[in-house]
Amino acid sequence: MSRRELFRMIGATAGGAAMFQAMSSLGFNAESPYNGPIELQGTPKGASVLILGAGIAGMTAAYELRNAGYKVQVLEYNNRAGGRNWSLRGGDSYTELGGFTQKCEFDKDLYINPGPWRIPYHHRGLLSYCKRLGVPLEAFVQVNYNAYLHSSQAFGGKPQRYREIKADYQGHVAELLAKATRQNALDDSVSKEDREKLLESLRGWGALDRDFSYGPSEASSDRRGYEKEPGGGLSARPIPSKPIGLSDVLDSGLWQGIPNGDTFDMQTALFQPVGGMGRIGEAFGRELGPLIRYSAKVIDIHQDQHGVTATYEDRLAPGTTLKASADWCLCTIPLPVLAQIPMNVGPALSAAISSVPYASAIKVGLQFKRRFWEEDDHIYGGISYTDLPITNIGYPNTGYHSSGKGVLLGAYIWGLNAMEFTAMTPQQRVQKVLEYGSQIHPQYPKEFDNGVAVAWHRSPFTMGCYGMWSADARAKHYDDLCRIDGRIALAGEHASFLGGWQEGAVTSSLDAIGRLHQLALAQGGKA
Amino acid sequence: MSRRELFRMIGATAGGAAMFQAMSSLGFNAESPYNGPIELQGTPKGASVLILGAGIAGMTAAYELRNAGYKVQVLEYNNRAGGRNWSLRGGDSYTELGGFTQKCEFDKDLYINPGPWRIPYHHRGLLSYCKRLGVPLEAFVQVNYNAYLHSSQAFGGKPQRYREIKADYQGHVAELLAKATRQNALDDSVSKEDREKLLESLRGWGALDRDFSYGPSEASSDRRGYEKEPGGGLSARPIPSKPIGLSDVLDSGLWQGIPNGDTFDMQTALFQPVGGMGRIGEAFGRELGPLIRYSAKVIDIHQDQHGVTATYEDRLAPGTTLKASADWCLCTIPLPVLAQIPMNVGPALSAAISSVPYASAIKVGLQFKRRFWEEDDHIYGGISYTDLPITNIGYPNTGYHSSGKGVLLGAYIWGLNAMEFTAMTPQQRVQKVLEYGSQIHPQYPKEFDNGVAVAWHRSPFTMGCYGMWSADARAKHYDDLCRIDGRIALAGEHASFLGGWQEGAVTSSLDAIGRLHQLALAQGGKA
Repeated sequence: MSRRELFRMIGATAGGAAMFQAMSSLGFNAESPYNGPIELQGTPKGASVLILGAGIAGMTAAYELRNAGYKVQVLEYNNRAGGRNWSLRGGDSYTELGGFTQKCEFDKDLYINPGPWRIPYHHRGLLSYCKRLGVPLEAFVQVNYNAYLHSSQAFGGKPQRYREIKADYQGHVAELLAKATRQNALDDSVSKEDREKLLESLRGWGALDRDFSYGPSEASSDRRGYEKEPGGGLSARPIPSKPIGLSDVLDSGLWQGIPNGDTFDMQTALFQPVGGMGRIGEAFGRELGPLIRYSAKVIDIHQDQHGVTATYEDRLAPGTTLKASADWCLCTIPLPVLAQIPMNVGPALSAAISSVPYASAIKVGLQFKRRFWEEDDHIYGGISYTDLPITNIGYPNTGYHSSGKGVLLGAYIWGLNAMEFTAMTPQQRVQKVLEYGSQIHPQYPKEFDNGVAVAWHRSPFTMGCYGMWSADARAKHYDDLCRIDGRIALAGEHASFLGGWQEGAVTSSLDAIGRLHQLALAQGGKA
Repeated sequence: MSRRELFRMIGATAGGAAMFQAMSSLGFNAESPYNGPIELQGTPKGASVLILGAGIAGMTAAYELRNAGYKVQVLEYNNRAGGRNWSLRGGDSYTELGGFTQKCEFDKDLYINPGPWRIPYHHRGLLSYCKRLGVPLEAFVQVNYNAYLHSSQAFGGKPQRYREIKADYQGHVAELLAKATRQNALDDSVSKEDREKLLESLRGWGALDRDFSYGPSEASSDRRGYEKEPGGGLSARPIPSKPIGLSDVLDSGLWQGIPNGDTFDMQTALFQPVGGMGRIGEAFGRELGPLIRYSAKVIDIHQDQHGVTATYEDRLAPGTTLKASADWCLCTIPLPVLAQIPMNVGPALSAAISSVPYASAIKVGLQFKRRFWEEDDHIYGGISYTDLPITNIGYPNTGYHSSGKGVLLGAYIWGLNAMEFTAMTPQQRVQKVLEYGSQIHPQYPKEFDNGVAVAWHRSPFTMGCYGMWSADARAKHYDDLCRIDGRIALAGEHASFLGGWQEGAVTSSLDAIGRLHQLALAQGGKA
C-alpha cells in the first residue's frame, strides 16, 4: 500500500483531522504530484513502447518502462539527449529555423541554459532522477539583495539595489499599518489582544523606530545597507543611510520585483546541476545508451489495432526514410511540431493538440572578459530585473571569484519583445541586448567578448518555449490531451499544470505510462 | 590616489551630490570598511613585527606585513592555524577547559563549523583573501522557505513551514493596510496619486484577491504552498491550501523569524568555503608556513623603548619557556585570555581589555545515519528556528542528495541557556540537544549516530565566543582598545564594529597594521 493510499484510507475511515495528523507525522502535509518511484509490475512478456522525443518526459518514460521489462525505443530529432534540458557550451553549434547557425565561443566550463535553469525543492520527481542518475546539484540563487531593480523611467534610470527597495517598501508599509492601528482605524478587524502583538511585530519586521516610524537609523540600515558600513579599528563607526520615500518607491514600480523569491516555484531551496542544466539530459542519455536513436525526424505516426508505427527521416542521411513500430506509443513531441505531423488520432486529441500556443521566449548568453559584476558591483549570483525588453540579467551561480572570463544570462525576453527579437539575426539580438544591458552595467561595451541567442520560436525541435494554456483552452481540451487515444499517449510539460517546468514533463510522463501500463496489462501482452 | 581619497576630494570641492554621482558611477555608493588591498610602502629595513595569535586577524597582518618586507613571527596557542575559523572533522580531537576531550567521529568530508559559518557578500576584506588564497566558495542558504519555524507553545508544538508563516503574515498585513487605505484612514499620509499604486502593490505583494482579501486561493497557495500541488497528466489539478488566521500567526510569535534573511549580514549572497569554514585558516596557515610557531602559549608580554618581547610556553614540551621579540607587536589574543596575561600597557588600554564580556555561545554538531531532512522533510540547506534552547537547526548547504551519513548543526545556543549547557559534559549536551531536536524532527532518536559540542566559554584559546560590547563600554573604551599603546596594537573582531564576524578581524587588523606602519616609518627603522 502506498502512502497516498494509506492516507486515503485513514481519511475515509477516521475523517480529515486524523488524516492530516497521520500525514503530518510522516513529515509532509501537502500532496505532491510525485509519489515516489513508479511501480510497474507484471509487464506482459514482449510488450513494447515506442517513445517519441528524448527530452525529460521521453527519457523518464524510457527509463521506467525499460526497468519494468518493456522493449523500448526512443526517436530523437537532435543529435543529443535532453531536448529543452540543454546547456550551450563552448564548441557547441546550433542552427535555428531560418538557417542561422551559431557557434558558441564560450571558454571551457562556461555555459548558458537556453531552456530551464532552476529546480525548486518541491519538484520531487525531477530531483529523484537527479539523485538516481548521480547528477550533483548546487544552489541556484534567485534573490540577491545586492542585485539591481531597474526602471528606465525611475531614479533617472539609475539601478537600485534590491535590498533598498525591499527594505523601504516593507518599512513604509509597516509604518502605515502601525499608524492606522494606533489610530483605531482597524478596531473591527484587529482584536484588542492582537493589537499590541501586531504593533510589536510591525516594529521588528519593518525595522521601525520606537515611535513606529521608518527613517534613517541603525535598524533600517541593517536592512537597506549603510551610508558607511561598520568596520574594524579606529574610525570604524557605521553611518546610516537614508531611505527612499514611499511615493518614490510606489512611483518607480520597482516594488513589483520584491516578492519574486516568495512564489512557490522561486522559493529557496532552488537548485541547478553542477556544470549546467544539460547534465540531467546527458546523464539520462548515457543511461539509456542505444535505446535512443538520434537525428531521427518523425514525419508520420500511424496506429492500428496491432500497434503504432512512426516513420522518420535520418537527418544524417537526407532522403532516407525509416520506420519504427511498437505495441504502444508515448509521444512527447512539443505540440507546435506535433501539429504538423500526420497522426491518426481522434478529433478530441487533434483539437487539443492545436489549442495551445507556445511561449516565444528568448535567452541570450554573453561572455565577458572578466566577472565585473562580482569585482565592481559585488553581485554574486542571482538576478537583476529591468523594465527594458531584456527583462533580466542572470549572474552565474557557480565559480564565484573565478578569474578569467565569465558568462551571464544577458536577457530573458518575453511576449511581443521576443517576437521582435525573433525576427532579428542572432548577431543583431546579441548587439541589442548589449545596448540595453549597458544601461544597468556600463562595463558591457568594454568587457564584452562574445554571445549566443536562442529564440525558441525558431527552435526546430520545439517551435516555441513551452505551452501556454489559456483558462478556456485548459477547461475544454486539457483532459483530452492527456487521455490515451487508442495506443498513443501524450506527455510533456504541455500535458501538465506545471507549464514550462521540467517537473511537468516528469509527472505527466509517469502519469501517462502508469495508464499505458494498465492498458497493456488489460490486454495481457502483445495485441 | 585611492578611490576613497578621490571621493573625499570630489566631496570637498563639488559637494555631496557630485560625490554621490561619482561614487555611483563607479558602481558603489556605500563606503565599505575594506578599501582594497592595503599598500604598505617604504618599510624600514629590518623592521620586525611579532604577531600574537594565528587567527584571521593575526594571519591577515602576517600576510600583509610579510609582503611589505617586515620580519614577521606569529605565536599560536593551538596546533593549527585559524583560531575560531575552524571546522571540526572526523578524526579531530578537541580538549576544552575542564579537561573533557572529544574525538570527532564524523564520516569523511563531513564537518561542523564551531565558529563562524557564513560570509556575507559585503565582507569584502575576507572575500578578497578567499580569492587571493584560492579558497573556493559555495552558497550558504540562510533562508529556506521549506524549513521550519517552531514554537513549543503554538500550533500544539507542530513545526510550521517558513513559507506558510511568511505568506500569511504578509497577506494579513497587506489586507489590513488595504482596508485602512480604502476606508480613507490614511489620507493624511498617502496622497491621492499614491493611493491606487499602494493598493495595486499590496495586492501583488500580499497575494490578495481582487477584493483585497487574503484567503485560500491560487495566489496565496503560490506563496504558502498547496493542499495538493500541481502536477502532470490527468487528475493533476492543484488544490489551494488554507491560510492561518492573523490571530494565530501573531499569537505564535513565529513572525519573529520572518525577516531573518532581510538583515544586512544575512542577506543573499552569503557564502561558505567548500569543505568548511576552516579552509580559510588552513590556506592562510599553508601560505605563512614557518612564520607561525604553533602550540605556543603566551604567558607574558613586555615592551620597552626598543621593542616587544613575548614569553611563551611550548605546549608540546611542558615547562619549556621561550621568548620572541620584535620592534612591534600586533596582539590578536581574545580579551578574556589577554586579560590574564601580564602586559605593561597603560591604564586606558588595560581598562578597555577588561570591559568586554564574551558571548557564551555553544554549537553542537550531530551526525545521522541518513539525510532524513532532505529525504523526509524536503529541506535542503538553510535553518529551522525554534523557541527551544537549541535555537536553531542548520542543515548542510553542500553535498545535497548525498547518500550515506549526514551532519547537521543541532544547536546554536545562546545566553543563559548556553551557561547551563556549558556546565554539562559534552555528552550530556549532545543528549539534551537530541531530546529538544526530536520535537522538530521525530527521526532524531532512530537516526542518530554521534555528535560533538563546543561550548565557547570552555575554549582554552578564547574563553568565549566573541566580544559583546555594551553601548556604554563602547563609548568609554572602544577607541582606547584600538589605539596603539607604545609598540603594541590590538586587533581582532573585538576591535571592530563587526563583533563576532571575521570581517571585523580583517578590517581591524588592516587598520591596526596601517597605523603601526606609519609609526615604523616615523621612526625610520629599528629603534
